[in-house]
Amino acid sequence: MISQHYKDMCATPSVIRSLAVYATERGKEIGYENVFDYSLGNPSVPVPQAFNDAIKRLLDTKTSSQAHGYSPNPGNPEVRRIVADSLKRRFGIDYRTEHIFMTSAAASAIAHAVRCVTVPGDEVLTFAPYFPEYNPYINATGAVLKVVPADTTSFQINFTAFEEMLNPKVQAVLINTPNNPSGIAYSSETLSKLAQILYAKQEEYGHEIFLISDEPYREIVFAGADAPFVSKFYDNTLCCYSWSKSLSIPGERIGYVAVNPKAKDAEMIVPMCVQISRGTGHNCPSSIIQQAVAECIDMTSDLSVYETNMNILYKELTDLGFTVVKPGGTFYIFPKALEEDAVAFCEKAKKYDLILVPSDSFGVKGYFRMAYCIDTEKVERSLAALREFVNKEYK
Amino acid sequence: MISQHYKDMCATPSVIRSLAVYATERGKEIGYENVFDYSLGNPSVPVPQAFNDAIKRLLDTKTSSQAHGYSPNPGNPEVRRIVADSLKRRFGIDYRTEHIFMTSAAASAIAHAVRCVTVPGDEVLTFAPYFPEYNPYINATGAVLKVVPADTTSFQINFTAFEEMLNPKVQAVLINTPNNPSGIAYSSETLSKLAQILYAKQEEYGHEIFLISDEPYREIVFAGADAPFVSKFYDNTLCCYSWSKSLSIPGERIGYVAVNPKAKDAEMIVPMCVQISRGTGHNCPSSIIQQAVAECIDMTSDLSVYETNMNILYKELTDLGFTVVKPGGTFYIFPKALEEDAVAFCEKAKKYDLILVPSDSFGVKGYFRMAYCIDTEKVERSLAALREFVNKEYK
Repeated sequence: MISQHYKDMCATPSVIRSLAVYATERGKEIGYENVFDYSLGNPSVPVPQAFNDAIKRLLDTKTSSQAHGYSPNPGNPEVRRIVADSLKRRFGIDYRTEHIFMTSAAASAIAHAVRCVTVPGDEVLTFAPYFPEYNPYINATGAVLKVVPADTTSFQINFTAFEEMLNPKVQAVLINTPNNPSGIAYSSETLSKLAQILYAKQEEYGHEIFLISDEPYREIVFAGADAPFVSKFYDNTLCCYSWSKSLSIPGERIGYVAVNPKAKDAEMIVPMCVQISRGTGHNCPSSIIQQAVAECIDMTSDLSVYETNMNILYKELTDLGFTVVKPGGTFYIFPKALEEDAVAFCEKAKKYDLILVPSDSFGVKGYFRMAYCIDTEKVERSLAALREFVNKEYK
Repeated sequence: MISQHYKDMCATPSVIRSLAVYATERGKEIGYENVFDYSLGNPSVPVPQAFNDAIKRLLDTKTSSQAHGYSPNPGNPEVRRIVADSLKRRFGIDYRTEHIFMTSAAASAIAHAVRCVTVPGDEVLTFAPYFPEYNPYINATGAVLKVVPADTTSFQINFTAFEEMLNPKVQAVLINTPNNPSGIAYSSETLSKLAQILYAKQEEYGHEIFLISDEPYREIVFAGADAPFVSKFYDNTLCCYSWSKSLSIPGERIGYVAVNPKAKDAEMIVPMCVQISRGTGHNCPSSIIQQAVAECIDMTSDLSVYETNMNILYKELTDLGFTVVKPGGTFYIFPKALEEDAVAFCEKAKKYDLILVPSDSFGVKGYFRMAYCIDTEKVERSLAALREFVNKEYK
């Protein structure tokens, strides 16, 4: 019999996706180049040629079963070793092969990490503003996602609210830095304070609280930002990575869980992920893609365009009088809307062919997100529309 | 806090995998070419060159975002159309794009299909002998897998036992034809009778019973076998396919769910799969691999070696006095052991460097599985060992 639960879920379309569909439709009327579509976080810079070359070289030099055969369940061991070595070299943590579990990007990494450290009914805390897909990700595990209200002055952590919400049912805390949608990176000070609170609460509650760190934007950090590696601050950290944004390959679905070697039962987490994957139907990312990312391990796409775009938008938005915290990374910016109702604000923006995402689904009211992973030329052309929108509607 | 459930699962290693590890270790002592390793179902024939060429051509001709960008959640729409058209052309069922959901091979297809048509507590029936991974696959959904005892005379369906086990809690029936481990394909007669019973029980219980058809071996069918397309027999069928065996690309994790257009709520199943994928962390197979299989849609590896191997083994086994039903497909054969305890039988076989898998974990006692996806030359060399084993131990 058809599951009513999943049938009902179909009835609630994603706000972001609906806006993207609107932008595409509008593009058919006026030309997509004239729609200032800031809706989707889809990388605009190309994959490095070295990545495509690596795939071709692997196809030419490997046997069929080396290229396309089953990986062992935790992933290709040589790929896992290369990932561990790179993390160790870059961040000074003693990762080894057995700490790395290859996943279908960050979504899959989070799906595994949460199941490792919670049981149904446990609480997982995250911080607004947050990626709305965390709701289905966590709900499907049986754990309950609770959202700590935002510190809207800085979009760092609202520690007062956090401490009020902590209780013995909290088994995991899920963070995302640099952050979608705010663009803010958690500072060393923020992460130190977070770790200090978690260590104290572990002691008080008599059980571990795991920090699940969702890091798809780790490599997109702007000049001057303090964006340290999360796992350095707290032993019980599971780092969830994706190459989607750093190599501009979101469709290849490739990432990993890196278990802090000092975490409780660190040696058990990857074997547990293997067991979890049997039930989620995951069973490893593509073999050839695993090997190709390993060949490009310390490489990224040319990500500089995102910083260029951020600076253009940040200047224009502040010039226009918006309240906005300057992003430290990602390709998002999260200004305060010019009226209380962000949905109404974004609806009005459509008249100027500006596609902005209201903040409500990110767990904050009165803000909006712009995903500036688009050509700089288009960002520049959008400024006139932005000015016209603000001047006509709000001055 | 670490999940005890998944931690405990780590303590029960797979029998097949343990045997494969033994074979590898033994290979280090005497040379792997001298170990007659019939343990793993890992395709031995190479990928078609056309598949690798397709990947290279896609990398050369597509833009970065066409090659590696996000697919829409149900999969690349052009790929889904090509899959639907191929199924329609080959099997005469009116599949359209909206009936195809791209998955990370059959494991992921089953994970989605079962969640679509059951809720926790429902029963799913399957038939012995069966692929033991069905246990974790189904258990993780919350549904309960129950195994119908085998008809060991033919390894078709034991309908008497099936009808006794049917009850209103059964919401899905999971079949695998051609079958791992028996190698048997369900005949038209078997599938007609199965459909007839399911139609009657749907009527009686007042709810649908879905047939989930796991078909990774669909393209490996031997001369003379009656191995019809399952979905033709029963409207409420979800076909779960994988290219792992047909194109020898098990590591690429690519397959689909094809929803019978006549199924109840057929138009809802793919959108529901999308919702399910948000919680399992699946979110589409690799973009480039999706496009490459579409370019090779009606192609397979040269699968003839499997039939050659089957015929050699079937003749030798029957000459040696084994009771064995001749396989209609796959690369498995499932003879009766020469003593009641198949585990003891397979343990003795190790002395002759024959790696055979006892049937116990497939839900039948007293049989063993040989996976003959190995070189024919090695199959031929193994016959002397097989003869020596039988003559020394059992004559």
